Amino acid sequence: MAKKNKSALTEKDGVSQPETTSKSSAEKIKFNRRKQPSVTEFVEKILSGDITFLSRAITLVESTNPKHQQKANEILDACLPHANNSTRIGITGVPGVGKSTFIEAFGKYLTSLGKKVAVLAVDPSSSINKGSILGDKTRMEQLVTDENAFIRPSPSGTSLGGVAQKTRESIILCEAAGYNTIIIETVGVGQSETAVHSMVDFFLLLKLAGAGDELQGIKRGIIEMADAIVINKADGDNTKNAKIAKIEFNRALHLYPPKENGWTPKVMVASALENKGIDAIYSMIDEYITDNKRELFFDKKRNNQNKFWLLETINQKLKDNFYNDPKIKELLNNEFSELEEGKTTPFSAASRLLEVSKNKKKV
Amino acid sequence: MAKKNKSALTEKDGVSQPETTSKSSAEKIKFNRRKQPSVTEFVEKILSGDITFLSRAITLVESTNPKHQQKANEILDACLPHANNSTRIGITGVPGVGKSTFIEAFGKYLTSLGKKVAVLAVDPSSSINKGSILGDKTRMEQLVTDENAFIRPSPSGTSLGGVAQKTRESIILCEAAGYNTIIIETVGVGQSETAVHSMVDFFLLLKLAGAGDELQGIKRGIIEMADAIVINKADGDNTKNAKIAKIEFNRALHLYPPKENGWTPKVMVASALENKGIDAIYSMIDEYITDNKRELFFDKKRNNQNKFWLLETINQKLKDNFYNDPKIKELLNNEFSELEEGKTTPFSAASRLLEVSKNKKKV
Repeated sequence: MAKKNKSALTEKDGVSQPETTSKSSAEKIKFNRRKQPSVTEFVEKILSGDITFLSRAITLVESTNPKHQQKANEILDACLPHANNSTRIGITGVPGVGKSTFIEAFGKYLTSLGKKVAVLAVDPSSSINKGSILGDKTRMEQLVTDENAFIRPSPSGTSLGGVAQKTRESIILCEAAGYNTIIIETVGVGQSETAVHSMVDFFLLLKLAGAGDELQGIKRGIIEMADAIVINKADGDNTKNAKIAKIEFNRALHLYPPKENGWTPKVMVASALENKGIDAIYSMIDEYITDNKRELFFDKKRNNQNKFWLLETINQKLKDNFYNDPKIKELLNNEFSELEEGKTTPFSAASRLLEVSKNKKKV
Repeated sequence: MAKKNKSALTEKDGVSQPETTSKSSAEKIKFNRRKQPSVTEFVEKILSGDITFLSRAITLVESTNPKHQQKANEILDACLPHANNSTRIGITGVPGVGKSTFIEAFGKYLTSLGKKVAVLAVDPSSSINKGSILGDKTRMEQLVTDENAFIRPSPSGTSLGGVAQKTRESIILCEAAGYNTIIIETVGVGQSETAVHSMVDFFLLLKLAGAGDELQGIKRGIIEMADAIVINKADGDNTKNAKIAKIEFNRALHLYPPKENGWTPKVMVASALENKGIDAIYSMIDEYITDNKRELFFDKKRNNQNKFWLLETINQKLKDNFYNDPKIKELLNNEFSELEEGKTTPFSAASRLLEVSKNKKKV
């Protein structure tokens, strides 16, 4: 793409899982042969805001090669004291709601205020072959050429935990590189909203005004996570519908108990296309962050998120170790059949499997 | 209590955790010395509907003594082919909503239809010392003397998983003993509603009509689990409020997507005190069960619940084994401090802890 070379934003692709096609093998060899700068060089360049080095460090974070991971960890450790100083905003919404257009308008507004904006994504369904959200940069034509914006597609991977970990580590690198607003985009696949909600300070749900019955079909739990609902595409013939939708969403949000920090989620209307409502949304988020910092909820939330990810990572690994054992896989299937036929209870099946695993470890 | 001896329902207390008081030690010795019938005798008696043996078998299920557990497992295995043939109904509601009165009226109605009703409970906060829901049988005076009803308080225990497992095993014993309607009571403590929801065919939320704003303060997620909301105490001056509340709840339920089986949760009003609405609630549940059996959702749901409990039991045990290690406890606290001071990332902290645990096992 011609744009890639003209832009200051040279975006590296994420490293994909090993494949059998010769094309990807060739890419991999090329990647490995490229001269790797030292950790110190990486850190210095990242702290100076060098986008190329930031991209390459994220590529290391995303790599499944243990050597790359080791290096990534050293870079992360050195960047950590310079991180944690941004506002992290999560944005979700179903395909068609206008996420890209919204993020572009929102991102441009932020850079016009002098902010440096990084846009990352969590999309566990993505892979380089299948294409991912944010992968098609032509959808954010203006933001992509903005020198104060850095856009990176979702890391690829099959497990949400893995994808989320990589994005979370990339946040640290972006913050160290001076990005003071981090936008994490996600699409409502599986538990990806929960994962993003657990790594941001403010979580925004984008919705469309439709033909009434706005709340039908919203995924369970999403409304409870949202700090704000933005009704997008409130332009032209849609303006009236958007206002009606706003009333309905406000009523719905009223049904939920207030959040721990006392915040009642807000409903806003916006037209990313006509650039309307974007400033008000930013003011709301800014006010929220300021209030939360004053009341110490901000640090508390981030601290809780860190603990959550620490425990979550361990729990996931414990499960992976157990269930990925081929012997356990086979026995588990047998126990499922026995359960289905009413020949055992879940609890005795569980003890049998745990016993097998325990004895294997002793050998 | 005089009632205990008059009633056909001789209820055994659950076995408590070891204590230091001489009274409980004496009880324990007495319990151990009591002649234990054989597994075959237990099973025969349970299948014949003998309440004393049913109670004693549940006591074995609840025991923490490995010998008792072994025996309990053998009894469960033998009872299993005769289980699984009841309607399992979960009932939740905050204290004061009239759960006991409702269960009594509902249970009496069921026995009047010729059904045999077992009432169990899941209350992880309970212990014999602290008193548990259903522990005070005087709250169900009529049901407790009904020879077609069997009432058992919540097993005691500190972990919800443990309490839920015992209740789930008790369901099997009750079904084998011929109880064709199992009511599981729970109070909204921690995740206990989720646990009960995962072991029943129908989940009922009891609510009171108040002074408007009915939906404020309902615990997150509960409404999404409910198959029906019953507004209790719809009598006297409260009748009008209950009707208003019904409209408001109906509107709220409308906001959620329909369940997988196509069911839209119903809102009913009832007065357990005046015995009003009880028959309609039973008809609704009966219709639900019939529809679900015809559409094969019934078996599918039970099968999924069994798989859920199998995996849940394993996952819980894996975590227990990891986190209960004193060395890990100490290191985890250190890592929490490092996290709080921004000196490490959740992911590198997790790998360090997993590494320690792995090396310990190898020794």
